[in-house]
Order: sequence, then structure tokens, then C-alpha cells
Amino acid sequence: MNYKSLGRFTALILIIEAGFMLPALILSLVFRETRATAAYLETLLIILILSGLLALFSKGGKADDFYEKEGLACAGISWLVLGLTGALPFFLSGEIPAYIDAFFETVSGFTTTGASILSEVESLDKSLLYWRSFTHWLGGMGVLVFLLALVPRGSRGAGFTLHILRAESPGPDVGKLVPQIGRTARILYLIYICLTGLNVLLLALDMPIFDAFCIAFGTAGTGGFAVTNAGLGGYSGYVQWVTTLFMFLFGVNFSCYYLLLKKKPLSVLKDNELRFYFLTFLFSGLIIALVIHPYGSGTEETLRASFFQAASIMSTTGFATADFNLWPTLAKGILIFLTILGASAGSTGGGMKCIRLQLLFKDLTSNLKKMIRPGRISLVRHNGRPVSEGVLSNLRTYLSAYVLIALISFLLLTIDGKDLTTTVTAMLACFNNVGPGLSEVGPMGNFGSFSVLSKLVLIFDMLAGRLEIFPVIALLSRTTWNHR
Amino acid sequence: MNYKSLGRFTALILIIEAGFMLPALILSLVFRETRATAAYLETLLIILILSGLLALFSKGGKADDFYEKEGLACAGISWLVLGLTGALPFFLSGEIPAYIDAFFETVSGFTTTGASILSEVESLDKSLLYWRSFTHWLGGMGVLVFLLALVPRGSRGAGFTLHILRAESPGPDVGKLVPQIGRTARILYLIYICLTGLNVLLLALDMPIFDAFCIAFGTAGTGGFAVTNAGLGGYSGYVQWVTTLFMFLFGVNFSCYYLLLKKKPLSVLKDNELRFYFLTFLFSGLIIALVIHPYGSGTEETLRASFFQAASIMSTTGFATADFNLWPTLAKGILIFLTILGASAGSTGGGMKCIRLQLLFKDLTSNLKKMIRPGRISLVRHNGRPVSEGVLSNLRTYLSAYVLIALISFLLLTIDGKDLTTTVTAMLACFNNVGPGLSEVGPMGNFGSFSVLSKLVLIFDMLAGRLEIFPVIALLSRTTWNHR
Repeated sequence: MNYKSLGRFTALILIIEAGFMLPALILSLVFRETRATAAYLETLLIILILSGLLALFSKGGKADDFYEKEGLACAGISWLVLGLTGALPFFLSGEIPAYIDAFFETVSGFTTTGASILSEVESLDKSLLYWRSFTHWLGGMGVLVFLLALVPRGSRGAGFTLHILRAESPGPDVGKLVPQIGRTARILYLIYICLTGLNVLLLALDMPIFDAFCIAFGTAGTGGFAVTNAGLGGYSGYVQWVTTLFMFLFGVNFSCYYLLLKKKPLSVLKDNELRFYFLTFLFSGLIIALVIHPYGSGTEETLRASFFQAASIMSTTGFATADFNLWPTLAKGILIFLTILGASAGSTGGGMKCIRLQLLFKDLTSNLKKMIRPGRISLVRHNGRPVSEGVLSNLRTYLSAYVLIALISFLLLTIDGKDLTTTVTAMLACFNNVGPGLSEVGPMGNFGSFSVLSKLVLIFDMLAGRLEIFPVIALLSRTTWNHR
Repeated sequence: MNYKSLGRFTALILIIEAGFMLPALILSLVFRETRATAAYLETLLIILILSGLLALFSKGGKADDFYEKEGLACAGISWLVLGLTGALPFFLSGEIPAYIDAFFETVSGFTTTGASILSEVESLDKSLLYWRSFTHWLGGMGVLVFLLALVPRGSRGAGFTLHILRAESPGPDVGKLVPQIGRTARILYLIYICLTGLNVLLLALDMPIFDAFCIAFGTAGTGGFAVTNAGLGGYSGYVQWVTTLFMFLFGVNFSCYYLLLKKKPLSVLKDNELRFYFLTFLFSGLIIALVIHPYGSGTEETLRASFFQAASIMSTTGFATADFNLWPTLAKGILIFLTILGASAGSTGGGMKCIRLQLLFKDLTSNLKKMIRPGRISLVRHNGRPVSEGVLSNLRTYLSAYVLIALISFLLLTIDGKDLTTTVTAMLACFNNVGPGLSEVGPMGNFGSFSVLSKLVLIFDMLAGRLEIFPVIALLSRTTWNHR
């Protein structure tokens, strides 16, 4: 393990986090939230000292000595550190008295989960609400990807950057848009900023500008923290439809937008994953609408609630306009399915990702054919191109890891003695970075009453979900740490 | 597809089934159950006509033309036919008025699931109770394996028999005990008969002989149909301990018994899967005992209930002495975990099998190591020997299929609108051939109130679980049926 690179990298991540905390500090001054201002200043001081120490310790390391395991460890460690330090403003201001709760809330923010331990949010300082929602935005595209966007063209350490991108990017394969990774990262962030800006604009037409920013951050990162106790239920139908649209859009693979910019709309329309994502969204919304229609008050309202919830859960945002806890089992079943399925690869959404389910199904069919008629060659194809054995093997490993982590997390959570629906859906909602589950952790509930052990398990699940498992379990493996 | 072989094979299976139905017919005469006698005679007539027609149709086929796909299709088709015809006595006697219910009950019997649509069983004719329990015994070791036991030594069609054994045997790899398959099947059945006989003897010391036979059939096949409404709760503590022991024993890989007969106890003690199976059973029982102790009436009773339930669910038998629906969530969580885990490969039990979870974990660790340090060689070993890539690849395909079938079944079951715990555990209990789930399908409940669609889904799950998925989905694949 190249500890010096790891140290320098973590120091850089901390500095970036500090930079992104400045607007929240300024907001606290504007709103005259003195306790929050003090908390931000203390946090910044801690971060600066910490990164200074890390930089000192890691002087003279070689950036070239950077391979897969350094990439995995950097991703794992830096996300953990982001959560630990990002929680300080909540804790130091006293707004979230227990540090484990502040940690949970912040990891939930950065991983764009949106699971909250707060029973109500309106009493929170505005600058803290802003910081809470902003963690979604930062975590959505990835702090490491942001760092890559800063890497100047032609700089050394191409291996370095590729391994980082691979460790933090959602989906079975890295979608490099252009050969240079730095440029890819810049293009991704540019699209991200423009879409977020458009979302803010459209929302601001019918809601306070502060809310518009926060909700857009939560939508863009597919996070799901709201700024009012009623979630998105308190806003107008217009706001809900706009949010439905943008939740859907942020769950699309960003390379589709790049292709649109490159004026290649046909390749976008032919994309297998986009079609699957869109059709699943459409049918889920329609079936939910049919099921809840008898209980609704009108066709527009029913359609709005159904498509909002389908987009919200499938994109793994987790906003709610209705208490879907009370919906019929079929509607809840679809939401659980969408929780596991998740959004597209290369989007800001979580879950297994549509392409993984598609490839798993194709791989299964292909293997079954081989089993029925040995000697037969049956390739797995996606968008007309054969999928490499490496990607498929990685995919199967991902599924094993997913199932094992889900089983173990579930068992550990049962110790709390909550009902089974709460236990299972809390795990699924955190592991797939959705946020709300059902029963006690439904849209009207929260995660506050879990034990410290359960919160730690769920924090692990959120990080494992956001980083697609491997960087997080790599931290637990001896192979990562021994030898050089 | 070699249709003539398939036809002849199915005809043979039907004849064997008819033979095994004769004791039930005799019992109905002894107990003077005239409606049952008539039903058995009608059923036998239908079976004979059917098998005669099949034999006529398939005259002149070549047995040598028998490959993987014929093996898979034979296993799938013959189990379906066994369920369809085995259900006739229940239906024709009028004891189970709806044919779909009789079909469900019989498939549940043959697949050793033990999920019942009956709200009470004591009013059923004794000869039908006997037949119901006997399907467990027959399905436990496998009707196809029985057929193989009849194959004379040195007969042609070795490919034929190997493919059948592979399709019906539980576990990731075929455990051939001796080179000749016919002899392997005979040894397996001999061990099976002896253990069952011992079980009957020990039970008969403290319960009616009829009950002893039926309960031993349910235990040996790891089925779980009882003959009294109280399940196993109405019998003495002695009977419950004996049943705990035998449920555990029938969940052990039968090759362990063969090794014991061969006087190789050390190889048995060193067996990785047996150790894992035993330790999981022990710890599950102990944790459940700790959790339910505050609610129990005494230490012996608590230990008895805990170990009984752990053995019952882990071996996928499904007998109950207590309403574990009322137990704390941790105990229920462990039972759900044991439901999925299941017994050992090469036993009569269902579920994923211990060895699969062990191999999945080892495979995951090995792949993770490769990911962290590419170029490193990391072999998966079991009992000291490297596991072939073919077995691992099959295992990963199995997991994909398992997850996809579970997800789709779950979604289809939600249409019925039952609560989520009922829906999920009904699916898991049937798919893993356990029997009882939680909530409405708990040990005091039954599957009677599900819709026809749900019953069909659960029948599919039971068959897929018993035949380890591939033979059943092979029936749905075009590749099985087109070409020759």
C-alpha cells in the first residue's frame, strides 16, 4: 500500500470539502445563525489542521506508484473521512446532539441516500439545511470525480486518475467519454451544473429560492433530503411534476447527454439501458396509478403521485409526496423492486443499476443455453457489442457481494427488534441509497430510533451502496493493507 | 429434443408412482375409506392409460441419443407430471375440492416443501394423510434417483443416467459415491431406508405407529406435513428431541454416511460443509434460545423449542412445535436466514445449501483479491481441493437465477395484496422448500387464501427450488425444444 499517496489524496479531499463548506459559512453569517457560524469555523479549523498533518506525513511519496488497490482504498477512505468531518457542523452547533446521528445524517447526505435521523427539519438552522442538501449535490457526481476535473491536461499519473474514476463511478464499466480522464470529469461536471441550474430556475418559479436550491441539490444528486417536514407534499403540483422530470433525468446515464451534445440523438434513442430505464419507469408509474386510483381524489393527482414516486424511488432520490406506506401491497412491491433496481449506470443514482439487471438476465440466458446445449457459443451483447468476460465476471462478483452484505446486514439489524418490514426495507433503502423504506422508516418516519450498532451497519451499507461495494470491502481486506 | 426418450421416461415414472400408490390403496381398504379407495382406483386407471399412451407414442426411440437437455427436460417434465397425477386422489375423493389446491398440496409434498392449503388435517382420510406424507419420502431422495437404482449394472445409457442424476441431485456438484451410477443410487436409497426405519422405531416408542410412519416420512424427506392440527406440538418432549436429531441428520450430505460405512470417520469430521452446517445449527439454536428465553417456561423447554425450530428450518423440513410468528425479530431473522441457507448438498433438504454459501463467500474473497492485486492467483478451495471454474461458473449462474426468480415471484405475489411479511416469506418458504413462513403463512396459518395465480407462482417456486432451478427454467427455454 502506497500510504503516502493515500495520505496526500485524503488531504486534498479535505481541502476541497473545506472549500465547499464556505458558502454554508457565508449563509450562516447572512442568516445570523451564530452557533452555526462558530461550528463551521471550528470545523474548518479541524479540517485544515488534519489535512496539514496528512500533507506533512505524506511528503515525498511517489504518485506513480498507484494501482488498483490504491484507487480502491482512496475511494473508501476519502468517503469515510468526508462523512466524519462533514458531520462536524451538525454536531458542533448542537443541532444534532449525538455524533453518531450527525455522522449517519452526513453519510446519508454524501451517499445521496437521504435517510434521516431527524423527526422534523424545519427547526434546523438554514445554513445547516443548505449544507445537508449540498452534501447530496457533491456526493451525487462524486468528490473524487471533482478532483479529477481539476487535473490539468497532460499531467502525469494517468493510472492514478483512472483507478479513482473506476472506484467511484456507478455502473459495471467505466464510461470514459473522451480519452483524457480529466476532460471526461470536466464534461460530466459541466452537464451536471447546467442541469442543476435549469432545475433551480424552473423550481424558483413557484417556490422560495432557498428551497429551490436545496430541492434541486437533492434532485440532482438523487439524494432526497427535503427542507420542510411535509417533504415535497407541501409544494404545488407544478413543482412536483418538475421534480418528477428532473429525478428521471438525473437517473439517466450522463454519457447520453454527452452524445446529445455531440448531436448523436440516434445513439441515445437506441441505448438499451435508457430504453429499459424509461419503460420500467413508465410501466411502474402506470401500474401504481391503476392500483392506487380507487383511493385517490382525481386522475391528475393519482398520476402525479404515482409517477412522482416511481421516479423518486427508481432514481433512488427518495422524495415523497404521499405516504406510500398506506398503499396496496402491489404498489409497495413495485417500489421495493425499484429500490433494488435503481437508476442507470453513469448517473448520480444508486441501486443495482438497470444495466446490471439486464446483463445478469442476458448472462443467465446465455449460461442456460450453454448448459442445455454444451459446446454452443452464446455471447452476451449490449447495444449490439459483445460484453467482455471481465465485465461479466465482475458483475457476478458484485451480485454475490450484494447478496451476502444484504443478508448479514439484515441479520445484524434484526437485533433491534423492529418489525420485519422496517428491518428489511431500512437495509434496502440504505444499501441502494434510496432513503425512505416502509413501516417505521416510511416516508413519514425516520431512522432515529435505531441503535448505534444498527446505525453503523446502515452507514456501512450506504457507503457500500454508493461506492458499489468493492472500495468499501477492500478497506476490510488484509490484502489491501499488507505488502507494498 | 429426443421426444421419444422423454415420453418413455415419463411413462416409467408414472408406473413407479402407481406402484408407490398401492400401499395407500390398501390402507384405504383397511380403514374402510370407500371414497378414498374409489379415488385411488380411478387415479391408477388414469395413470395406467396415460403411461400406456406415452409408451405407444415413444416406441422405437434411441436411448443413446440422450444429452444434457434431455436430462434437464426429463427431470422438469416428470416432476410436473408427478404433481399433476399425484394430486388426483385428493381431488377425486373430494377431500380437497379444488384441483389447483390438490395440485399445490401434492407438489408441496413431492418437493418436500410442506406448505399446505389445508386449515386442518385431522378430518382427512387416513389413507390420504399417508399418501400426503409419503410424497415427502419419495420426493426427498428423488423419484428419478429411485429409477436409477433399478438400472442394472453394466447397462447401456450411462450418459442417460448421469444427466438425470445431475438434474435431480441437490448441490453444486454431483456426488457420485462409486463409479457406477446405478450402484450409487442403490447405496443412497439403502442409507435412506435404514435411517427412516430407525426414525420410525424411535418415534413408535412414544406415539401411534401410523403417526410414527407419517412423521418419519416427513422428517426423512425434510418435508414437514404433520398428521395432527397441532403439528409436532402435541407430542412428547422425547418425540420432539428425536425429530430434532433426525431432521438434522437428514440435512447432512449422504456421502458422509457412505464414508462412515466405509469406516472413514476422519474424512467426515474434516468435511468443510458438515462443520459449517453443524456450527450454524448450533449457534442458531443457542441464539434463538437466548432470545426467546424470557418468554419460555423453562430451560429444557426453551432449548427444545429453539433447537427443534433451528433444525426444522435449516433442514428445510418445516415442522413446528411453537408459533415462531410471535418470537422476537432476531429469532425470526435467524429463521429467515436459515430458510435461505438450507441444508447440505447431497441431502434431502432444500434451500441454497451450505456449500453454496461457503463457495460464494470464497469465490467473492478470491475475486476481491484479484481485483485489489491484479495478476495474483487465488484459487477457491473446498476440503483442501481446488474447485473447478466450471462449478464456480455454475454457482454464479445459480445465484443470478435465484435472485431473478425470487424478485419476479415476489412481484407477482404482491398482486394478492397480502402484507409484505406474508408475501416475502411465502415466496422464500416455497422457493427453499421449507413450508411455513411468517404472518399469514406462519406455522399456525396456511396457503389456502392465495389466488390461483399466486398458487401457480408458488408451485413454480417449489419445483424450481427442489430441482435447483435449471431443469424447471429449461422447460421454459426455446433452446430446449427446438432442433433435435
